[in-house]
Amino acid sequence: MTTVTVLGLGPMGHALATAFAAADHPTTVWNRTPGKENGLTATVATTAADAITASPLVIVCVRDYAVAQSILDADALKGRTLVNLSGGSPRQARAMAHWATEHGIDYLDGVVMATTDAIGGPDAALFFSGPADVYEKHRSTLAALGRNTRYVGDSPGQAAAFDASLQDMLWTSMSGVVHMFALAKAENIEAADIAGHAKALLGFFPDMIDLLAGQIDSDRYPGDHGDLDSTAATMDHILDAIRAQDLDNGVLSSARAEVQRALDAGHGKDGFGRLAAL
Amino acid sequence: MTTVTVLGLGPMGHALATAFAAADHPTTVWNRTPGKENGLTATVATTAADAITASPLVIVCVRDYAVAQSILDADALKGRTLVNLSGGSPRQARAMAHWATEHGIDYLDGVVMATTDAIGGPDAALFFSGPADVYEKHRSTLAALGRNTRYVGDSPGQAAAFDASLQDMLWTSMSGVVHMFALAKAENIEAADIAGHAKALLGFFPDMIDLLAGQIDSDRYPGDHGDLDSTAATMDHILDAIRAQDLDNGVLSSARAEVQRALDAGHGKDGFGRLAAL
Ligand SMILES: NC(=O)c1ccc[n+]([C@@H]2O[C@H](COP(=O)([O-])OP(=O)(O)OC[C@H]3O[C@@H](n4cnc5c(N)ncnc54)[C@H](OP(=O)(O)O)[C@@H]3O)[C@@H](O)[C@H]2O)c1
Ligand SMILES: NC(=O)c1ccc[n+]([C@@H]2O[C@H](COP(=O)([O-])OP(=O)(O)OC[C@H]3O[C@@H](n4cnc5c(N)ncnc54)[C@H](OP(=O)(O)O)[C@@H]3O)[C@@H](O)[C@H]2O)c1
Repeated sequence: MTTVTVLGLGPMGHALATAFAAADHPTTVWNRTPGKENGLTATVATTAADAITASPLVIVCVRDYAVAQSILDADALKGRTLVNLSGGSPRQARAMAHWATEHGIDYLDGVVMATTDAIGGPDAALFFSGPADVYEKHRSTLAALGRNTRYVGDSPGQAAAFDASLQDMLWTSMSGVVHMFALAKAENIEAADIAGHAKALLGFFPDMIDLLAGQIDSDRYPGDHGDLDSTAATMDHILDAIRAQDLDNGVLSSARAEVQRALDAGHGKDGFGRLAAL
Repeated sequence: MTTVTVLGLGPMGHALATAFAAADHPTTVWNRTPGKENGLTATVATTAADAITASPLVIVCVRDYAVAQSILDADALKGRTLVNLSGGSPRQARAMAHWATEHGIDYLDGVVMATTDAIGGPDAALFFSGPADVYEKHRSTLAALGRNTRYVGDSPGQAAAFDASLQDMLWTSMSGVVHMFALAKAENIEAADIAGHAKALLGFFPDMIDLLAGQIDSDRYPGDHGDLDSTAATMDHILDAIRAQDLDNGVLSSARAEVQRALDAGHGKDGFGRLAAL
């Protein structure tokens, strides 16, 4: 079993270390604030450099890339593999990959698309990018983190790009869900009474996502399932309803403004996928 | 079988008339521009007033409430039931209900949550609101439009309120989906390669919707599944990624601004549902 080091014992770092230990990997941990190793079967190092030199594979999972960078000791890491699972953007991932390469460190950039309680289980999705041989070398060890780990390419920013794109959809949609509940509440509709309808509507999303994906990859946007002219009219009705209740309309107004850009460019008879190609 | 009139033969009006005729209701139709009745088993009236007086139940489905109002003849409608299925806001629905009552017209306001090809089938959801006795009188006739018709209360704006709330979620989420594809494309990820992950992520939405509904109805927003502080950090990473690609960031920036309002109000440790109660 490979020896593994985990730097950072926030909720996520703790869950990662727990999963490695549960898969019988001898695990060394370090955290800025001591005493976060409760419940862990792991060796606790007193400095980050000590923790790094204990293992050929070093995972860092702290608040962000800037924090990660501040605790990483390039000399200690030289010749080892660093896997960064702190959240960030593709640009930050590329910058850290560049820094690692300059210092003779094998680097994989990863993202965790799961909550802490899912780590190690069937639902935890993790994406990794970086040199294929480095991933291959550590694949079976990293698999301890979730049964849904996936390598998405050798470009170091790729995992973060998947993450940013998916999170864009996730948080924009989450925003749509709370707006639905807020508007419903203002119209005296209880959340429990509209939740079932919302779920039914989401039932159409998988097909719609495939439809849009096909349009975008072929760069053709037929409007026969509804065109942007009618989307604009519908959004105006919704905005009217939101404004009548004095609710925040920033999100939908911004979406409406994008539709307007498409209309102004003469795409009113195109389908919604056109917005991905403005 | 009840005689039915349909005013408006755009794509939706045509689908509604087709469904009534298919359910053996003698159907009379009228449209501003003649010649739109192709394929329909229906009597074509030359004026809207003629069409109205042909049936006790009159459906209007045109572009919007203003258009509907412009073609509705109050004298002809007196003593009949008018069902408006044109899209609009709760405010417009309430105004039309008021007008109808003043002119001795029984009024139901309805919304169609379906595409034209679904009308009459198992997936077509239609919501109606207005006096319960009026709905009961026409329930079996209206059921021809879809197997998922639902009465949501006697307040005339209620159907439109359900519609606006659900459409708010729908179009905000749709916007999130195309943004995902746009960002992925900019990062050289094909739509087909991320679509499956997007669908997997949406698989968590039904539970999340129920979780949020419970929080909103109880007005309690525990952040133990992720709090607004970490949502803000995640959104900032996504915005960084979007800006680095020079893509439109209006929608997510607006969502981020709402989160900021919650943070400023001291709700950083609360869950996302808090945004419905700002
Ligand atoms: N939690 C989740 O569900 C989840 C899901 C997906 C991805 N992630 C990502 O995983 C990463 C870690 O998240 P988390 O949930 O564990 O909590 P977090 O609050 O994002 O990070 C906490 C960790 O960062 C460390 N840290 C913060 N500032 C530091 C500094 N200036 N110097 C040294 N260490 C510092 C903390 O050390 P101290 O204990 O000393 O403060 C702790 O180890 C984040 O990037 C997050 O985006 C989390
Ligand atoms: N299509 C869908 O999938 C769908 C789904 C849900 C709800 N809806 C709602 O259903 C309603 C009808 O939609 P639609 O798809 O049939 O197409 P639409 O383009 O919204 O409406 C077309 C109808 O409106 C009439 N119209 C427009 N302006 C008029 C005017 N100034 N005077 C008289 N008639 C006028 C048209 O008559 P002419 O033929 O003479 O132009 C035609 O009958 C809309 O409110 C829409 O929001 C549609």
